[in-house]
Amino acid sequence: MSEFDLIDVIRKHCAIARDDVRVGIGDDAAVLAVPAHHQLAVSTDTLVSGVHFPEATEAADIGWKSLAVNLSDLAAMGATPAWATLALTLPSSDRAWVENFCGGFASLAREFKLALVGGDTTQGPLTITVTVHGFVPNDMALLRNGARVGDFVFVTGTLGDAAGGLRLMGSDEPRTDLAQELVQRLNRPTPRVAQGLVLRGRARSCIDVSDGLLADLGHICTASGVGAEIDVDALPMSSTLSAGFSRDDRRNLQLSGGDDYELCFTASDDAATELLGDLARSGCGATRIGRIIEESGVRVVDAAGNAVAVARRGWEHFA
Amino acid sequence: MSEFDLIDVIRKHCAIARDDVRVGIGDDAAVLAVPAHHQLAVSTDTLVSGVHFPEATEAADIGWKSLAVNLSDLAAMGATPAWATLALTLPSSDRAWVENFCGGFASLAREFKLALVGGDTTQGPLTITVTVHGFVPNDMALLRNGARVGDFVFVTGTLGDAAGGLRLMGSDEPRTDLAQELVQRLNRPTPRVAQGLVLRGRARSCIDVSDGLLADLGHICTASGVGAEIDVDALPMSSTLSAGFSRDDRRNLQLSGGDDYELCFTASDDAATELLGDLARSGCGATRIGRIIEESGVRVVDAAGNAVAVARRGWEHFA
Repeated sequence: MSEFDLIDVIRKHCAIARDDVRVGIGDDAAVLAVPAHHQLAVSTDTLVSGVHFPEATEAADIGWKSLAVNLSDLAAMGATPAWATLALTLPSSDRAWVENFCGGFASLAREFKLALVGGDTTQGPLTITVTVHGFVPNDMALLRNGARVGDFVFVTGTLGDAAGGLRLMGSDEPRTDLAQELVQRLNRPTPRVAQGLVLRGRARSCIDVSDGLLADLGHICTASGVGAEIDVDALPMSSTLSAGFSRDDRRNLQLSGGDDYELCFTASDDAATELLGDLARSGCGATRIGRIIEESGVRVVDAAGNAVAVARRGWEHFA
Repeated sequence: MSEFDLIDVIRKHCAIARDDVRVGIGDDAAVLAVPAHHQLAVSTDTLVSGVHFPEATEAADIGWKSLAVNLSDLAAMGATPAWATLALTLPSSDRAWVENFCGGFASLAREFKLALVGGDTTQGPLTITVTVHGFVPNDMALLRNGARVGDFVFVTGTLGDAAGGLRLMGSDEPRTDLAQELVQRLNRPTPRVAQGLVLRGRARSCIDVSDGLLADLGHICTASGVGAEIDVDALPMSSTLSAGFSRDDRRNLQLSGGDDYELCFTASDDAATELLGDLARSGCGATRIGRIIEESGVRVVDAAGNAVAVARRGWEHFA
């Protein structure tokens, strides 16, 4: 299959009609219209084979995940997804692989009426870079730098499942149904787009949990010039995770495991009750896990208030 | 150097203050304002080490080229560059390499007041994906599909130099000053942004010559439902290229060599004279090389009107 056949396959799967796409795939650049009184939110994430996903990962899961991790960034800004570009570097031109990849990518794109508007296909080691574009009403983006002392800290969904799935994928034990559920959370994360929209104008700060809770909440604290104290026993946990791991293992997965793509946010006491109700109605509730304090850094305590030691604070390239 | 140190180095080199960048590098997404009555032009190009540039290429040249090839796409749309994101996949965290890369990237970015607004740094085989954003007044973008029978075909600058440079890089002969000039055209292409702005609203169709003249003019013809006839003896040629290669070699480099990043465009007879004058005044003139005809495909003739056989029509991945 030639490069141009490849582009045809991608276009057929992923180009969705949208009025604001004036020129889509097929010219030197896409031509796009941003709605009046809105700003553009733009984010880029790369997945490298063997680094961001195990080499044995199914093409459809890679396609899904390459878009999901980017949509998660838009969710964390409170942005409505609109367009994406896809830079796909492939070792060889394998039609079945590309069709499966596009199947995963497109099934998530359709959920959000997101149009693929351009990209590049090149030959080389498997690497996928997606750039997503979304809209926020002027000056309404959710930022990292708005946390204030006294805010409560919240997180959507459950934590640690994806990292648990990754650990089970590396083990020699036979796959159980429980393991399958966790691996699914690793391969097919759900970007919390609807929840980001609920939070817009109401949360004081927000980030998505991609590198691990401690690392990502740490970014909020640094950007806001504050610290945080979180209660490890309050961290939301799936029954699958609690069934599969010891307490200490589970705590580490929840605190430092990456790839959850939940939203971590802070809000004032006043706003919290109504916000939690609206989030639950949006399809994914949130849990209060701590509070913002003056002292810098992220402290971890247990339910009794005792400090908890942390082995590793989060994923970092070149660490 | 950690991932976050790397990001600091990149930010220091490449983040330029612009009023329309409301949130730049450092949050989950950039927040950007598109001017009223303008559309957004978006393009993505990937460079893979050993495919798009020889592995021995200097980091600064790779930085320059990774932005230049993308700016060339904006030029072909008649767009004014504004912002870019950079997805940088590196085998190791080498501060000197990254600083040199950023030096090359930033020296070109500054020419166009282009701000780096986000990106991703990951570990893996050397791969660079840049996504650029520019502005065009509503419905004024230069497209590929507007060529009409009777239009003249033009190209800016000279053709074949970059492909000549690539061939000389692969040879064992000692580097001459002439070779050095051609290699410079390969490593540091000049995106024809100013020329794209001159063409806006005046050329009928436009594309940048990245894969080779025949391939790229072929895209205009396919999109426009027309054909073209070009005169190989009219193709603009640098004195360096003519000094270094035989006639047949030179013709092949000019017709099928990639990486020139000149603009190929069509315009009506009426518009042509004034357009050529304005282009020359913009700092890079253009040459008439043929005309648009009804019969599909791109025919090549010599000055006497005889058909010229072509060995290879252009670069294609997975070909």
